[in-house]
Formats: sequence, C-alpha cells, structure tokens
Amino acid sequence: MKLSFEKSALLSAISIVMKAVPSRTTMPILECILMDASEDEIKLTANDMELGIETKVAGNILEHGKIAIDAKLFSEIVRKLPDSQVWIETDDSLNVIINCEKSNFKIAGKPGDEFSYLPYIERDHYISVSQFTLKEIIRQTIFSIAANENNKLMTGELFEVKDDCLKVVSLDGHRISIRNVQLKDHYEDEKVIVPGKTLTEISKILSGETEKEVLIYFTSNHILFEFDDTVVVSRLIEGQYFNVNQMLSNDYETKLSLNKQEFLNSIERAVLLIRESDKKPIIITITDNGMEVAIRSAIGSLQEEIMIHKEGKDITIGFNPKFLIDALRVIDDETVDLYMVNSKAPCFIRDGEGRYIYLILPVNI
Amino acid sequence: MKLSFEKSALLSAISIVMKAVPSRTTMPILECILMDASEDEIKLTANDMELGIETKVAGNILEHGKIAIDAKLFSEIVRKLPDSQVWIETDDSLNVIINCEKSNFKIAGKPGDEFSYLPYIERDHYISVSQFTLKEIIRQTIFSIAANENNKLMTGELFEVKDDCLKVVSLDGHRISIRNVQLKDHYEDEKVIVPGKTLTEISKILSGETEKEVLIYFTSNHILFEFDDTVVVSRLIEGQYFNVNQMLSNDYETKLSLNKQEFLNSIERAVLLIRESDKKPIIITITDNGMEVAIRSAIGSLQEEIMIHKEGKDITIGFNPKFLIDALRVIDDETVDLYMVNSKAPCFIRDGEGRYIYLILPVNI
Repeated sequence: MKLSFEKSALLSAISIVMKAVPSRTTMPILECILMDASEDEIKLTANDMELGIETKVAGNILEHGKIAIDAKLFSEIVRKLPDSQVWIETDDSLNVIINCEKSNFKIAGKPGDEFSYLPYIERDHYISVSQFTLKEIIRQTIFSIAANENNKLMTGELFEVKDDCLKVVSLDGHRISIRNVQLKDHYEDEKVIVPGKTLTEISKILSGETEKEVLIYFTSNHILFEFDDTVVVSRLIEGQYFNVNQMLSNDYETKLSLNKQEFLNSIERAVLLIRESDKKPIIITITDNGMEVAIRSAIGSLQEEIMIHKEGKDITIGFNPKFLIDALRVIDDETVDLYMVNSKAPCFIRDGEGRYIYLILPVNI
Repeated sequence: MKLSFEKSALLSAISIVMKAVPSRTTMPILECILMDASEDEIKLTANDMELGIETKVAGNILEHGKIAIDAKLFSEIVRKLPDSQVWIETDDSLNVIINCEKSNFKIAGKPGDEFSYLPYIERDHYISVSQFTLKEIIRQTIFSIAANENNKLMTGELFEVKDDCLKVVSLDGHRISIRNVQLKDHYEDEKVIVPGKTLTEISKILSGETEKEVLIYFTSNHILFEFDDTVVVSRLIEGQYFNVNQMLSNDYETKLSLNKQEFLNSIERAVLLIRESDKKPIIITITDNGMEVAIRSAIGSLQEEIMIHKEGKDITIGFNPKFLIDALRVIDDETVDLYMVNSKAPCFIRDGEGRYIYLILPVNI
C-alpha cells in the first residue's frame, strides 16, 4: 500500500473515527484504525463492536492495500507532522512508514484482514434531519440517561418516529426528558432504543450546521447515521421502552413562569452548600408574593427571592438541585413555565408548543 | 464587622490570596482567608506558613472587625454571585452573612485571632524589576528545579544580585538553567534560595505587564514581593547553593546554529515513540551535511534531517528529549546556538549576550 494525503484531511478523518476506538479493550485489534485503500477510495474505520465509524478521506492511491494502525499513536504522530503532504506506505513485514517533509516514521502495523468490518445495513427505512437538530436534541436529553447498567434500557434513548415527528426520550427513574422535532418530509413510523454512548460520540463528530443533513437509517438491530463522508453504525438496545405517555399529565394546581437564567443562577449558588455525600434538597416556596429558593446544610444556608408569575395554589416543594440545573441548562427559552400538582407529584417544565417536556420527581421534605 | 464591596474587586482579591491556601493541611485555620477590617482598610490574607499572601481590597467599612472564612467555599460563593454590590457581615456566633441582590448566604466563620499573620519583614534591601521580567524569568527556569525533596536546595531557585544584575539559577542534577537580567538601578549584592512553590504561585498572580514594577525585599530568612496592592512573603531555603560557575565552560569542539522551532518540532515528534517507562534517548548526529535526529524504541523509529550551520567537529550525542524540549520551549529566539565538546560532556544552549545559559548533560549511547 502506498498513499498520500494532505495532513489536515488525514488528521480530521482520524479524529472522526477515533470516537469509536475503545479506551480499554482486551482485543488489541480494536485499538487500531483500519486504513483501507484496496479499492478506489481511501476509507478509515474504527469499530468497538457496539459502535463503528467509517469515513472517507481524500488522497492519492499509488498502490492499493490495507493496514490496521494503532489508533492513538497514529493520531499523535499525524497531529505533530508539519502541515504538508503525508506519505503512508507499508512494507512486507507490516511496517507502516510515514513520511512528511524530512520526517520518517516507521511503526508496526497489523494485518487489515484481522479487522472487523462494519455490519452491512439495509438502507430502506430512514429519516433526514439537519446536523444542528440532531446535535441539539442529543445535548438536550442525554444528561438524563442512567449512568449504571442495572437497567440497560435506561442507558439508551428512545428515538421514535410517528406522524412525521421525531420524539427523543431519556429517563433515569427520577426524571424524564422529551424533545420533539417536526420532520420536513413523510416517513414511516419507527421506534428504537439507541445506546447513550453512541449518541455522545456522534454528537462530538456532528458539525452542528443547520444546512448539512444527517440521514438516519433504521433496521431491527442497528441504527446508521450518514453525514458528510462519514457513516456511524451502532447496535440498538433490545427491549420494549417504557410507556412514557402514561407518566405524563397536563393537570396542575400551580403554574409559574419565571426567568430561566435567574432561576438557574440561584440553584447553582445553592449547590455550593452541598457536599457530594449529603443529599440536601433545595426547597422552593411559592406564594402570591413570589418564590423563595432555600437550602440549609451542614455548611451553611442560602435563601433567595425570585420574581415569578403565578397561577393557582401556594406550594412548598423540594428538589434534587442537580435535576433542575440539568434541565434548565438545555432549555434555550428566556422564560420557562413550571407546572406542579402537590409536593409529592412530578413537576413539569414544558413549553406551549410541545417542543420539550422535562419531568422531575420532587424529594420528600 | 460589616463591609461592602463590588463583587469583581472582592473576587479578584480572593483569587490572589487563594494561591497561598494549602490544598491539604492538618490545620483547618490555614484553609481560611482572613478578612481583616479592624483598621481603616480591608485586607485579605492567606498563609500556609511557608508562603503568605496579603492583598488590599477596595470596599466600605460600616463596622470594623475581622473573621476567617473557609477559602474554597468563600471563593465559590463570591464567584457565583451576581455582578453587583456584595455585603459581608458577621454576627455574635461567628456566622458570616453574605448578601448580594436577593441572595442571602449564611456560613460559619472562625475567629480572626486564630489566624497567623505574615511575619514582619524589614524593608531595607530590595531590588525593583517589572512584573513582566519576573514572570518571564520564573517561566524560563522553573522547569529544571528538582521535583522531589531529597535535596532541598534543588527544589528552589537561586536569586543572586551582583553588579546590578539579577541572576536566577535552577538545577536538578541533569541540567542547569540560568537567566540574567540587567537591573536599572544600583543595588546591594544579595544571594538567596527561593522555594520553587513560591515562584510558581507568584507567577500566577503577576499580571506580566512591563510598566508595572515588583519590589523584591531580602532578609536573611525571608523574601517579600510587593506589587499592585499585594504582598507575598515566603521563607527562604537555608543553605549554600551549588557553585554553578565551576560547572560552566566556554570551550567547545562543535558549535551549531539552527532554527529553534524546527528542532523543537522534531523532538516533540520523537517523544511520541517513547513510553514513560522506557528511557530511550534521542540520538543527534552532526556532520558537515547537516543534523540527523533519530530515535528507535519498541514502538517504532523516527529519523529526521535538520538544516544547521556548523563549526568544528562532527559528533554523535544522545539526550533525554524532555530536557531539550523544556529548554527550547522557553527560549524565544528564532535561532539558537548549541555548543558541545564530546558525547560525554555537557551541551550548552546559550546566546551571545549572556541572557541565558541552558546546560544539559548527555545520555550514554
């Protein structure tokens, strides 16, 4: 194999596929990037068996071939090369020779045949959204997946296509995040559970531009994202997702509208008085005169007043402040509406247009 | 005590004294900042018994007094307050009440009397340099102090005033860094060893402006830095510093001039092939045709050519690449000169004007 690239093109392709290189693995071949120029284009692939990424890179093929190269080392070397033409070739002993200006690296490669290719995916069922939209809905929901694997379903997000609308849901037993996006075309209904890790990694690769599209293909076991010169394939999580609709309700006894940033700042100050170990709730007291945010811990106390617009009953309710912070941080509206029934029932933060619903369970006080 | 401040002024004063708050200590009072308004100005002080920092902060004194406040918590709280007027008062139970707009914090304080004041320093012997100069000479030498305490003298830097010139020296047994600065006035000779930690912390506080001066006062046990509204006092390291002059020499068999950045880039690529555990040297071969930089490790090999201007003999010499990188990174000249005698004698990187000398011992190859 003998190839040449512009350093910048090679480096950005490596950075993309690196997202699928596992940080710890017992299979050394998975720590590699496959560089495949056996046909008429050059493809880089990484694959941790759950998540696989393949991207094309512009370059010249002087001699066909393929080789697997240690991903971390390859990435570091290319990053440090001068901004110039990079030549990569292999010898009969599977050495990889990297030339750039007056630098000559020689490192050991592995046979390309040992590498696991991405699974073949039927491209029948799909939707199209902008890179911006996909990146945003991931950011706005990913924080409320469960961190531990006790309940596998909770480590993923529901992607549901219904009536030409994409609904993305995550929940961890204490809260639910829902985002709805109107699609621009007519698509078949779909319902899959995508691993959280896949979504985290893909959102790092997405450029976030509104003019660039992502095609999302669905099969019964896999989801495939296609954008720019890149394909991301992930296994799905098997099983039946939670019936979220039955946990939602439009009834309320108290409704408030308030300035989001002011509320968020106030809670961020309150958490300064909580150490990891003690689970002090933040206490919110709503009366006709306004809202009081208060916390009292071993470290000290804080009490603040916030201006609100209130409808309905007075209420005193306690929350894990982290859950409020997580939700408020990803809402871009200047004013948010909170709906409550009583101090034991879930609180909803939702907009009037059905773009988002954040359900948060209160804490006993 | 009852005081008021602009949040920004209070926050920057806290950030300055925080540099003397120890991260681990068995004496809880040392984790505090002393806020002292017992006289007609407000001073913040932190003191880890080796290094103490005191700074004045602009504010109104409504009621005199002093209190010690947990430094980390206080800093976090003030950082999160709105950009507005901050009121701080104490009650009879040593509580600290922090008010800002509609936020009311209450945290526990400690009696100000428990706090150790900075030692009294005679201000007789001093020099004056710009903040820029002091910050630069620290950056350009601090990397070659010894990290471990086996030889206490090596954990500090020599500050020597002689013939109206300030010489700063650090060494760790493998290399020596020397910077010379011509002073603008006539001063008495001085010779002290300043702890590396003091210099690291002070360089974080210095603004680095060329127009602002630092007064450096010397006593037999302490050094005091005075700049802006801040005073930094540090114990000195006791003992007789190494006789560095006898380790220096102007003799050489080979002299090269080369582009600093090109050489540095080349060595930074070479270290990619070294893992922490194996101590592979970088091999430099100098002939009339130029310089070859080469490294060979379990990971792979690199070989590069660099253009040089050479005088004297051919030579092959090995170095710990880290030592070359550290020295080259802090030299701002475009071209550097290297002087060598043979493959076992120290290599010198020095300029023609005597501003800097970096001595690096070679490695056996």
